[in-house]
Amino acid sequence: MKNTFGTSVCVTLFGESHGAEIGAVLDGMAPGLPVDEESIRRRLAMRRPHGALSTARREQDEFRIVSGVRDGKTTGAPLAVLIPNADTRSADYDAMRALARPSHADYAARCKYHGFEDPRGGGHFSGRLTAPLVALGAIALDALALRGIQVGTHISRLAGIADRPFGDLQSDIEALSDSPFPALDAAAGERMQEQILAARAAGDSVGGVLECAITGMPAGVGEPWFDTVEGVLAHALFAIPAVKGVEFGDGFAIAEGRGSEVNDAWRATPDGVKSKTNHSGGINGGITNGMPIVLRVAVKPTPTIALEQQTVNLETGENATLAARGRHDPCIVHRARAVVDAAVALTLCDLLAGRYGTDWLAGTQA
Amino acid sequence: MKNTFGTSVCVTLFGESHGAEIGAVLDGMAPGLPVDEESIRRRLAMRRPHGALSTARREQDEFRIVSGVRDGKTTGAPLAVLIPNADTRSADYDAMRALARPSHADYAARCKYHGFEDPRGGGHFSGRLTAPLVALGAIALDALALRGIQVGTHISRLAGIADRPFGDLQSDIEALSDSPFPALDAAAGERMQEQILAARAAGDSVGGVLECAITGMPAGVGEPWFDTVEGVLAHALFAIPAVKGVEFGDGFAIAEGRGSEVNDAWRATPDGVKSKTNHSGGINGGITNGMPIVLRVAVKPTPTIALEQQTVNLETGENATLAARGRHDPCIVHRARAVVDAAVALTLCDLLAGRYGTDWLAGTQA
Amino acid sequence: MKNTFGTSVCVTLFGESHGAEIGAVLDGMAPGLPVDEESIRRRLAMRRPHGALSTARREQDEFRIVSGVRDGKTTGAPLAVLIPNADTRSADYDAMRALARPSHADYAARCKYHGFEDPRGGGHFSGRLTAPLVALGAIALDALALRGIQVGTHISRLAGIADRPFGDLQSDIEALSDSPFPALDAAAGERMQEQILAARAAGDSVGGVLECAITGMPAGVGEPWFDTVEGVLAHALFAIPAVKGVEFGDGFAIAEGRGSEVNDAWRATPDGVKSKTNHSGGINGGITNGMPIVLRVAVKPTPTIALEQQTVNLETGENATLAARGRHDPCIVHRARAVVDAAVALTLCDLLAGRYGTDWLAGTQA
Amino acid sequence: MKNTFGTSVCVTLFGESHGAEIGAVLDGMAPGLPVDEESIRRRLAMRRPHGALSTARREQDEFRIVSGVRDGKTTGAPLAVLIPNADTRSADYDAMRALARPSHADYAARCKYHGFEDPRGGGHFSGRLTAPLVALGAIALDALALRGIQVGTHISRLAGIADRPFGDLQSDIEALSDSPFPALDAAAGERMQEQILAARAAGDSVGGVLECAITGMPAGVGEPWFDTVEGVLAHALFAIPAVKGVEFGDGFAIAEGRGSEVNDAWRATPDGVKSKTNHSGGINGGITNGMPIVLRVAVKPTPTIALEQQTVNLETGENATLAARGRHDPCIVHRARAVVDAAVALTLCDLLAGRYGTDWLAGTQA
Repeated sequence: MKNTFGTSVCVTLFGESHGAEIGAVLDGMAPGLPVDEESIRRRLAMRRPHGALSTARREQDEFRIVSGVRDGKTTGAPLAVLIPNADTRSADYDAMRALARPSHADYAARCKYHGFEDPRGGGHFSGRLTAPLVALGAIALDALALRGIQVGTHISRLAGIADRPFGDLQSDIEALSDSPFPALDAAAGERMQEQILAARAAGDSVGGVLECAITGMPAGVGEPWFDTVEGVLAHALFAIPAVKGVEFGDGFAIAEGRGSEVNDAWRATPDGVKSKTNHSGGINGGITNGMPIVLRVAVKPTPTIALEQQTVNLETGENATLAARGRHDPCIVHRARAVVDAAVALTLCDLLAGRYGTDWLAGTQA
Repeated sequence: MKNTFGTSVCVTLFGESHGAEIGAVLDGMAPGLPVDEESIRRRLAMRRPHGALSTARREQDEFRIVSGVRDGKTTGAPLAVLIPNADTRSADYDAMRALARPSHADYAARCKYHGFEDPRGGGHFSGRLTAPLVALGAIALDALALRGIQVGTHISRLAGIADRPFGDLQSDIEALSDSPFPALDAAAGERMQEQILAARAAGDSVGGVLECAITGMPAGVGEPWFDTVEGVLAHALFAIPAVKGVEFGDGFAIAEGRGSEVNDAWRATPDGVKSKTNHSGGINGGITNGMPIVLRVAVKPTPTIALEQQTVNLETGENATLAARGRHDPCIVHRARAVVDAAVALTLCDLLAGRYGTDWLAGTQA
Repeated sequence: MKNTFGTSVCVTLFGESHGAEIGAVLDGMAPGLPVDEESIRRRLAMRRPHGALSTARREQDEFRIVSGVRDGKTTGAPLAVLIPNADTRSADYDAMRALARPSHADYAARCKYHGFEDPRGGGHFSGRLTAPLVALGAIALDALALRGIQVGTHISRLAGIADRPFGDLQSDIEALSDSPFPALDAAAGERMQEQILAARAAGDSVGGVLECAITGMPAGVGEPWFDTVEGVLAHALFAIPAVKGVEFGDGFAIAEGRGSEVNDAWRATPDGVKSKTNHSGGINGGITNGMPIVLRVAVKPTPTIALEQQTVNLETGENATLAARGRHDPCIVHRARAVVDAAVALTLCDLLAGRYGTDWLAGTQA
Repeated sequence: MKNTFGTSVCVTLFGESHGAEIGAVLDGMAPGLPVDEESIRRRLAMRRPHGALSTARREQDEFRIVSGVRDGKTTGAPLAVLIPNADTRSADYDAMRALARPSHADYAARCKYHGFEDPRGGGHFSGRLTAPLVALGAIALDALALRGIQVGTHISRLAGIADRPFGDLQSDIEALSDSPFPALDAAAGERMQEQILAARAAGDSVGGVLECAITGMPAGVGEPWFDTVEGVLAHALFAIPAVKGVEFGDGFAIAEGRGSEVNDAWRATPDGVKSKTNHSGGINGGITNGMPIVLRVAVKPTPTIALEQQTVNLETGENATLAARGRHDPCIVHRARAVVDAAVALTLCDLLAGRYGTDWLAGTQA
């Protein structure tokens, strides 16, 4: 499978950071779903670098959809999106090509691809590849919204600054969809941005934690072994560059409580069976229970930094030092939010199509 | 796929907690690998409840292998292991059948299976199903050991008590393989067991964090999108009941540091390229880098407790209270260690067979 | 995947001809479907050798279902069936162990498994493995029948004797379900049986062609690339030992006609759009069109025969002759009919669950 | 999976007949394999319509590879090929849009996609989609050739005219690689072309049978259940539009012989164990036996013909007649030969990478 993910709804990614074009194919989505190019544009903008917070590489992401859409609706055939790489400066990378960047994929890639890999700008490993993923994610998010399923992600922590926790999910998710810097507490967001700029000034980088909430998922989706909702979502989320941890509900903190403290009591309500608390994050036994799904992903600091680091020259096999040139991000957490939304939405579409059939998302099932 | 996991080496699980037999099928392992029944017995013992720390249900796990082995070696055909359920007391569950246990799969399962599911002892959701997984894991662990790959798991935290961190991995992993209660620091282990007994006395339960280390993995295994080593391992690990988080290397803590603090500097050594630190946990860009893989999983407190809890009667739809009867564990963290070892080992065999072909583990490749 | 087949509904096979037990796991079937042990017994009887037409090995196929069924209905969890091997005589095989039977899997298996394979009675390659497949197929056939989908297979040709073609499919399929020797024309069936007995008397074997018809499949199931209904069914059917060809509709004969002769004209009927003829066998562009699916499989003569054949001793590498001992079938065509029905039914359940969701077969979908 | 095929080496197809671009992604090929654009061009030319034998639509197939290749070699990352559609005339199709072409996918597609499908030129069902498959197949064929594996396909029968059977495979395969019309016997090829022209003149179409031979495959590749070499190849081959049958070795004819006539006797030779005959077509028990693989596929006459046919107007539900306009092929058998070569080569790469690991094809394995 490798660069394809999904069972009923599948995504295939291709491209390199400095290649002519990157792209992705979305297969298995119901026919008849709206494809709103403006929505894709808005999602790509959320991911795009801007201002001093991000790399100086400025891509317009002038995507085009070459298949699978007719009269603004999915046909049911594979939908391919292509995005040209416009603003590439490969020369920056030639200079440091033999020097494996610490904590970057350079050395591991060399071991896997024997030196045939494209090293320019991270090649196939580049975060640039998340652009087509975000484009397809926009279609998935719109489809889910039609069935009353909403997805939103904020920066829970960044460089030691904590955002306020999720409150009313409906209004929080709505607010996030318009927010260029996804903090629920504007003041916290300001301080986070200061930290990014400070790291940049120091030739360094910072990481953070993204928290995602999903409302409206029907109960009864997922499998006990092995395709748990947690497992399938985590599988997708760990593909996002720099993610080193994924947790659901209370996550690692749940291990500190006693059962009586972290169990979610069931209650009969006018809207059906609900739990009073949501320590489980909407999933029990691998299956959705009708409560909001809540998850967090840990994003490490960007490994490529201007500060001098120790490394090895892979051509000579000798020790060396590296102070990275090239344009790079002092932080990718705020940009990765759009990628988390996309990966989550595409995975949910896959789970839902597997559970309810290929037409359910469009409401055209028999 | 559902109850089957893996691409090149696959595991299929079946059975229910109170059914006649449970079992699993291992497919795709190289022919010619040793199958040591004593090794399987030892691994099953690690997982088996004992003493006052665990449920009073006492299963002898008298497994039998009905296919795929001849003269003590794998044939290359599917290897099926069967384990009878001997000590079942379904009556305990009949009484509380309609009452959805908080944070257990009962309600989610009802939504998925419409009431046709087997509720006795957790049915197909039961941790009992991990016994055949552990049996197959023993074969995978022995196969990996022949290629110099070692796997070991300790309790990093339990009910607020921390074990010492991993030190010399080779001796720590060796020590863990003989340890009935997997703490590296014996005194910490004693205090953890006291906490489990205290929770039990209170009719409550506790959780914890397991940490697993893997040494000897070759560099260059895994895929950038989407079959990252992190993603594939997490997919398998989230299938273990009660797991709510998975992290690699520094995991969520890495988000707090700056790039200059958490990047792993490369160094030329007599053994090849190595990193000075291992914040990345042996994986960069989804691919092994030759350093030890380190991961942690969060295990929630057992949801079934004797203390009274609020819930809903799924037959009547009315609120109710539940004080669980039946035999249950006040903590499953120490038992789950054997399951983590098994899930990790089976997943690594899958990744290695995909990378190097079906014969590599047995050293018979062309 | 190897010994597992299917995407939404999966079958995993395990066991060897002379092992203690053989079995199979069925995963992904809707919860709430009836499991009728009498129906399984009847299907196993169709496959079982009897009289002088078949091997003298007489297995009672005393199957047991160890999971996935409660109160006579599927639970939705994996359903495992186990069948003991009772009447094994491995000594017959020891004598000829080193002699690769012509056109049997012995030599290819040796190249793949390096001699670790179980050679007794064909080991994992044995037609014996089709017994659990037939058992699971019975459940699938009953499930399809509830949705108005019927499957039946007759011997189209055997040793040069032709059966009459399918006529009224409903009555023909009904007649086949009770027929011990599946010929639509009883006289043709008699002559076929004479041919089998003649081949047996000559120490030889015969083959034939099975033709399968499926009525009631909804239109719109299948994929254009690559999971065509033809491709997915053929993938399953070629797993049946001795199958060397699969064709749909007019199959190879369609290549002889002109488009104007073999195109199926569409007509508006009170029952919707139907075609006047069915040269396409119910499938266009890989997708069902609502007409009956018709397919044929070529079954070669049993390779193990008593007549002396030339071969190679795999231990010494020298030429040798072989006159097979052991009990073997002079023809497996009539027995394979039950296997074709099973493989087709299980594959259709997979395609339908993928198309309409996991609950559709049981009629419990939202 | 749907539009993706393969386990270790995967192909994903996208595009429509009259869309802006069509394309395909090849994933999992070993890094370091040569990518020869001239070779791709030559293979595309084999598939391209020319002269009066084919449709008047003339595509230049100006492909571009946008990822996965660097310095003329595969990088190991997904290789995406794009081909613009230049010569489209959608207006021809607008006229007959509501009229389901007999034996074409129009009606089945309507049932599946509810009218959202793109009908222009067959949309996603069009044989046009085989162009990117042929482009990727060229890379696979070149890779196989480096390991001594050759693939070649000729027209075994066309409109009643038979080609001579395969003789010396090495020289026959070589001859076919240069042959614009793939008949081994030039005179037979002439008569076949006359038949095509006659059908065209009559507003009709003809079909045929393609026969493919593969030399040099190592023994021991494939699985007994369910991923037999026959099953996996057939799964891929049935995706080629118009294929209605696939057989291996003697195929359907083998059913007519006795075991003593069609068994392949093994002989010790200086080149190892070989069989005297090859009725089995190089595969026993689903696994290659080291002999050449021989298979045949039945290709039906092109369903779109100029002669008047009966059909139904899908908009009005009423009976109608249709005399197809638009440019179409009176025969696609000779063009499909390049597609068979491609599908076979890509599938073999998948099987080999699964068996021997991801590097084997490039000879860089450990």
